[in-house]
Amino acid sequence: MKPEMPRARRQRRVLPAEVRTGHLIAAAAELFLSKGLDATTVDDIVARAGVAKGTFYHYFTTKADVLLALRARFSQDFNSRAQAAIDACAPDDHHARFRAWLRGAVSAYVANFRLHDVVFHDFTHDRRRSQEKDMVIDQLAALLDAGQKAGAWNLPDTRAAAFILFDGMHGVVDDAIASARLDPEPLCEILEDMLGRMLIR
Amino acid sequence: MKPEMPRARRQRRVLPAEVRTGHLIAAAAELFLSKGLDATTVDDIVARAGVAKGTFYHYFTTKADVLLALRARFSQDFNSRAQAAIDACAPDDHHARFRAWLRGAVSAYVANFRLHDVVFHDFTHDRRRSQEKDMVIDQLAALLDAGQKAGAWNLPDTRAAAFILFDGMHGVVDDAIASARLDPEPLCEILEDMLGRMLIR
Repeated sequence: MKPEMPRARRQRRVLPAEVRTGHLIAAAAELFLSKGLDATTVDDIVARAGVAKGTFYHYFTTKADVLLALRARFSQDFNSRAQAAIDACAPDDHHARFRAWLRGAVSAYVANFRLHDVVFHDFTHDRRRSQEKDMVIDQLAALLDAGQKAGAWNLPDTRAAAFILFDGMHGVVDDAIASARLDPEPLCEILEDMLGRMLIR
Repeated sequence: MKPEMPRARRQRRVLPAEVRTGHLIAAAAELFLSKGLDATTVDDIVARAGVAKGTFYHYFTTKADVLLALRARFSQDFNSRAQAAIDACAPDDHHARFRAWLRGAVSAYVANFRLHDVVFHDFTHDRRRSQEKDMVIDQLAALLDAGQKAGAWNLPDTRAAAFILFDGMHGVVDDAIASARLDPEPLCEILEDMLGRMLIR
């Protein structure tokens, strides 16, 4: 039996790693939202996750480290949801694919803006680029490039168009959130109308 | 001669107040840009402005106070420049007025982005509204409302359109600044084309 041990132990350690970091990140997210980022301690996080402090330090160095992991998870989740909505449309229906992106983006942002504000709390005006924004822009620019190639629309610059669509959507939804208009439907309708006007032949 | 004295003294104090605060704000702006916000002291500011420390404290309470005054001046300047560009167009040429706003906004932002970054250094994502942004949005929404009333275009929501136009412009210019493309002309052309598509009847 002895030769089997390392493999079994390795398997046991590989699986729980993802589960455990997942629990720690989820516990941190809940605490950041309820107590605030500054007031949350590593002790709070391990207590909420129900793990020993040593487990935390096995995977993370500091609280800031968990926040980075949470930010990455938040962005990947946003992109995956948008991609799933896009992929549910016919590959050649580029206008439907754009509307699916827009609806996915608006509803994800409205639903998760509090967590959005936690993970991007240190993103200021002078930070013009980030890995997270690049990811969103690249996804949208790819969608726009495909439609452009197929002749669905004619844009002078698909990357610039992606910024107008994403930042324009962001600005309209931010204003809605600031006035507590949290129903995504009227926002989607207005944005579909106005942003859709850019996507002409 | 004695009854004339108070009036003359009052006049002498009223005029220099604006000039002196102007000098102090300008000196602070230069230092914030060259030394950075944190490294600049009140001593640096009075030395650069060539005034006594007491003069500083006559008009301002702290360094943060000068920064607020600088931010207000920056925003008012942005708006005045945009308004001057708009007002140089015929009152009924709404498309020309929009293009004038756009060109004014793009060139002012590209020319002053370093000062922009200083005065808005603490504006983060979770800060959805500000007096400064409201001022820009109100100006643009008024332009859009006038064009809408005259039948130059037909927008489902002029305030939402103002956010798309301003935040879309901001996003495209931010990407350009991040890649050191500081010539406003190609940016204006692309933005005029794409944003102008929204302004249809």
